[in-house]
Amino acid sequence: MKAIVYVTIKENVLDPQGTAVQGALHTMGFGDVGKVRIGKYLELTLDTTDRAQAEEQVKAMCEKLLANTVVEDYRFELEG
Amino acid sequence: MKAIVYVTIKENVLDPQGTAVQGALHTMGFGDVGKVRIGKYLELTLDTTDRAQAEEQVKAMCEKLLANTVVEDYRFELEG
Repeated sequence: MKAIVYVTIKENVLDPQGTAVQGALHTMGFGDVGKVRIGKYLELTLDTTDRAQAEEQVKAMCEKLLANTVVEDYRFELEG
Repeated sequence: MKAIVYVTIKENVLDPQGTAVQGALHTMGFGDVGKVRIGKYLELTLDTTDRAQAEEQVKAMCEKLLANTVVEDYRFELEG
């Protein structure tokens, strides 16, 4: 089974990396660019076919390691 | 208009960050985890309503700044 995890910075938390990219894009002539927010995209393969168990495991991984839940949100999808 | 950009490391390129996360997950008891690949997830707002123009602009941004096309792939979606 495959899990796709999206980790994003919470809406009310500053994203300096996004701000830097926005500035660079403006400098390069892409003046139409407004807000830029940068997060992480993770693909994990799991050696299990039990969907409920996979969901529970991925949730635990996100809470414990993949996301810093103080400043980040996460969501995930399971495939296969 | 909003653009969601996914930047991922090409299949045949090593992902040391992914390997480190995989090792950490194993150490934490998540033995079911196989391959881990880590990419970037970007949300951009664009001050345009012209979908074709937005598509062209986001493609140019990816090629020139957001992705290193030697070792990374990208794909994007437009919303709104």
